[in-house]
Amino acid sequence: MRFLICLATLGLIAACDRVTPPAGPADDSIARPSFSLATDEAYDFDKIPVYLETHQDVYDHIDANLDQHLAKIQQWLRQPSISAQNVGIREMAELLRQDLEDIGFVEAELVPTDGHPGVWGYYDAGAEKTLVVYLMYDVQPVNPEDWDSPPFAAEVIDHPLGKVIMARGATNQKGPERAFLNALESIIAVDGTLPVNIMVAAEGEEELGSPHYPQIIDAYEERLRTADAVLFPFDSQRPDGTVNIILGVKGIIYFEMSARGGDWGGPANAEIHGSWKAIVDSPVWRLVKALSTMVSEDGNTILVPGYYDDIRQPNIEESQLINAGIEQWSDRQLQEMMAVSQWIDGKSGIEAVVEYLFTTTLNIDGIWGGYTEEGVKTILPHMATAKVDSRLPPDIDPDEALAKIRTHLDNNGFADVEIRKLGGYPAAQTSVSDPAVQAALSVFKKYADNIAVRPRTAGSAPFYQFTQRLGLPLIPAGLGFGTGAHAPNEIILVEPASNTGAAGLADIQKSYVDFVYALAD
Amino acid sequence: MRFLICLATLGLIAACDRVTPPAGPADDSIARPSFSLATDEAYDFDKIPVYLETHQDVYDHIDANLDQHLAKIQQWLRQPSISAQNVGIREMAELLRQDLEDIGFVEAELVPTDGHPGVWGYYDAGAEKTLVVYLMYDVQPVNPEDWDSPPFAAEVIDHPLGKVIMARGATNQKGPERAFLNALESIIAVDGTLPVNIMVAAEGEEELGSPHYPQIIDAYEERLRTADAVLFPFDSQRPDGTVNIILGVKGIIYFEMSARGGDWGGPANAEIHGSWKAIVDSPVWRLVKALSTMVSEDGNTILVPGYYDDIRQPNIEESQLINAGIEQWSDRQLQEMMAVSQWIDGKSGIEAVVEYLFTTTLNIDGIWGGYTEEGVKTILPHMATAKVDSRLPPDIDPDEALAKIRTHLDNNGFADVEIRKLGGYPAAQTSVSDPAVQAALSVFKKYADNIAVRPRTAGSAPFYQFTQRLGLPLIPAGLGFGTGAHAPNEIILVEPASNTGAAGLADIQKSYVDFVYALAD
Repeated sequence: MRFLICLATLGLIAACDRVTPPAGPADDSIARPSFSLATDEAYDFDKIPVYLETHQDVYDHIDANLDQHLAKIQQWLRQPSISAQNVGIREMAELLRQDLEDIGFVEAELVPTDGHPGVWGYYDAGAEKTLVVYLMYDVQPVNPEDWDSPPFAAEVIDHPLGKVIMARGATNQKGPERAFLNALESIIAVDGTLPVNIMVAAEGEEELGSPHYPQIIDAYEERLRTADAVLFPFDSQRPDGTVNIILGVKGIIYFEMSARGGDWGGPANAEIHGSWKAIVDSPVWRLVKALSTMVSEDGNTILVPGYYDDIRQPNIEESQLINAGIEQWSDRQLQEMMAVSQWIDGKSGIEAVVEYLFTTTLNIDGIWGGYTEEGVKTILPHMATAKVDSRLPPDIDPDEALAKIRTHLDNNGFADVEIRKLGGYPAAQTSVSDPAVQAALSVFKKYADNIAVRPRTAGSAPFYQFTQRLGLPLIPAGLGFGTGAHAPNEIILVEPASNTGAAGLADIQKSYVDFVYALAD
Repeated sequence: MRFLICLATLGLIAACDRVTPPAGPADDSIARPSFSLATDEAYDFDKIPVYLETHQDVYDHIDANLDQHLAKIQQWLRQPSISAQNVGIREMAELLRQDLEDIGFVEAELVPTDGHPGVWGYYDAGAEKTLVVYLMYDVQPVNPEDWDSPPFAAEVIDHPLGKVIMARGATNQKGPERAFLNALESIIAVDGTLPVNIMVAAEGEEELGSPHYPQIIDAYEERLRTADAVLFPFDSQRPDGTVNIILGVKGIIYFEMSARGGDWGGPANAEIHGSWKAIVDSPVWRLVKALSTMVSEDGNTILVPGYYDDIRQPNIEESQLINAGIEQWSDRQLQEMMAVSQWIDGKSGIEAVVEYLFTTTLNIDGIWGGYTEEGVKTILPHMATAKVDSRLPPDIDPDEALAKIRTHLDNNGFADVEIRKLGGYPAAQTSVSDPAVQAALSVFKKYADNIAVRPRTAGSAPFYQFTQRLGLPLIPAGLGFGTGAHAPNEIILVEPASNTGAAGLADIQKSYVDFVYALAD
């Protein structure tokens, strides 16, 4: 899961004071908004009841069939499905489709898109409520030589935390996904049906940035709107057992800015000898100057007029969640992990958390132009490009943000600097007070001592498809621990050692069983 | 020859008014120096007498042995000597050394350096005058698949201009170099000795920027100082026969500027997830801002205090040469060649030429940081780097220039931005009035209708080793035409078609014979 693997520890959900940016005639007078919490109170997790029901027959079925359930996960993991390289994609889509059919889904079909196919499934329980399950069946590429166990062998191996399956996709995302399907299968085996209807809306391009996922939603949009909630099965536990739940993501606009020679000057077609700089304009200097107009001297305040206009303050719920989770935020630990000596302006604690979650950014992801190899080459390059992203807190429209940047460049004499949009979508937010979220939290409280709920991560994912477009709450959560997403030696914990707090495969599946029942209530 | 292949047509030599930059308290008030010629008069080439002597016996020897001379050039061209890849370097150095011995050089030896060896030769003619011959025996790398004829086959092929040899090194620089040695061999064959003593000081690292050439000079410095002039055999003609001679080069300082995370902020060790921009400083923005302080909004005026202090105005001789050559400067033609719509500030004609030859520059040769591949990756990079070069007109010390840049960065709060010097040397200048230059010009007038002498190119070459260090005039010139240096299908013209103005191999060699005799007079 692209956005979540980069999460760090923080603690914290969403309504709407607008921040008024300081007025002033010149760009120099633009200041970053300053944020303050709407309340000093902390969210009271104690008032969420622990889920007390037991579904012993189903639990017993899980315990009795755990080897087969593990084998099912291994089967998925042994089927490569590398979206970027189009390896095993068709086979994996068909495996998922067939599994849904085998479980009893009355609809189980491939969904053609302009890219890799989606998979749609519908389990008709004749129930009142319907749960949408978002699945991704693709994985990241691998460098097998970097792995301790072959990435598509999916062997169970010993690990300091207990027994784990090592495989590409173990935790990101096939492991928890197939565990969830094992839970459904167990309920059906015991009860004959499910307590809720299930809609599966799976894609095979998550690792590519989900470029065609909207086409999958398009095909079932009216039916999806009738659902009650969306679950994204996820290994949310830390090794000590703490469950981390994130209820929102920022939006993003990602674009390239390029300066190249043209009517304004500079070489238009190819680099020229550097000595011509004496009488020829430089597209690289032009890009540097255009970029430089966009932020303050310290690189941290966005000088694009109006860019901060729609940034809002934390609302009551978000403030309560931040207050409840602040003990889990360690500036020092985060800074050490990233080798960062200090946060911007020396902020710390709640001030840093709020800035992190509520402000917008202008970040240069990459910049290049001209000769970038070793040694000396004297050229005047004909173009230079920067990749830029801006993280968008709730209520900011990506295209409006980009339009402000375009206008700013035009107004500063940089109309020739091209902007190429590479992607963008708005933020997504689910409220902690949503019944589905409350159901999930009460189930997690049954299995874990510690639950950290954050209103949002500063990272981005296209969850607006569910929250904004379909109007559904989204819960990317579950018990279980995994690590190594997008890296060698990816694992999912299946049988914890005695001193490990995180759940093993049996409890992961039992908690999914409980969640499905809890949602139905 | 690295610096000359990028030459374009211009026309123009060297005394010393300083330009006074406008005074002012703020950087914003720094203006580019404006230049004006010291005289409206043009240099009178008519007053240079045509070289009238003939050395018929030697010419006859050349005509009679032209096949062997051509074969000698082919032998050199068939011996690869790619300095960057260390291919054939030892063999080529030995071939050159052996050839010098065979010709009759009493000293012919390899010169160890910290890189590829140099070759030293001394021909003792017992003459009054001594000519130093600068040779480079290395060539650029090749992509054989891009060539019409294999780059080390050195075949004679038909070309619209006549018969040519196609090979890597054909014109850059083995072709003209071996032609010059053929000329010496012919004189010795006929006369038994040479009219001047010859010192050969050859290197095998010109294409690497001549990093160890000073070591070769070190070994023979006192003897080299006793010489009268330096010749660098060169194909100086255009296809129409016009001889282009350049009497000077600008100096250069080349360095990398890097910003990376550290005590000031930013990630110090590795990229981090881009969402952290909300509270983490960006080394890429830091580099952009540091660079931005160095030049005016249009990228063309250097705002480093004092950077223009020692820039001088064109002197009388330079002004005369510029006036004499201005007809050969075509703004339109040059702009079309480079796809540049206009020169800086819309300059043209003499104003553009003078700016080109006399100002200093700050040019970004390359810039890079973060993710520079296709598509989207959201990171906050831990460092960013720019390669920067500054061309230095006469009398500017490279290290002083770099020190001013360092001071400027420090004074603007960018002490953490690292500067790594990759190379640098001062300008070199030879006067058109030097007897050796006058001798060369009188010989060229015998063979060519049109001669264009420029006081300088805006490009750079480490010729200060000869001019400034040894105090010798340097003439990088000769008859002949070649093209394709550093590119596929490099050629030297050996037998011109009837309508081609440039000299063939026979005349190239005869003119070298004349030059050696003219120098002796």
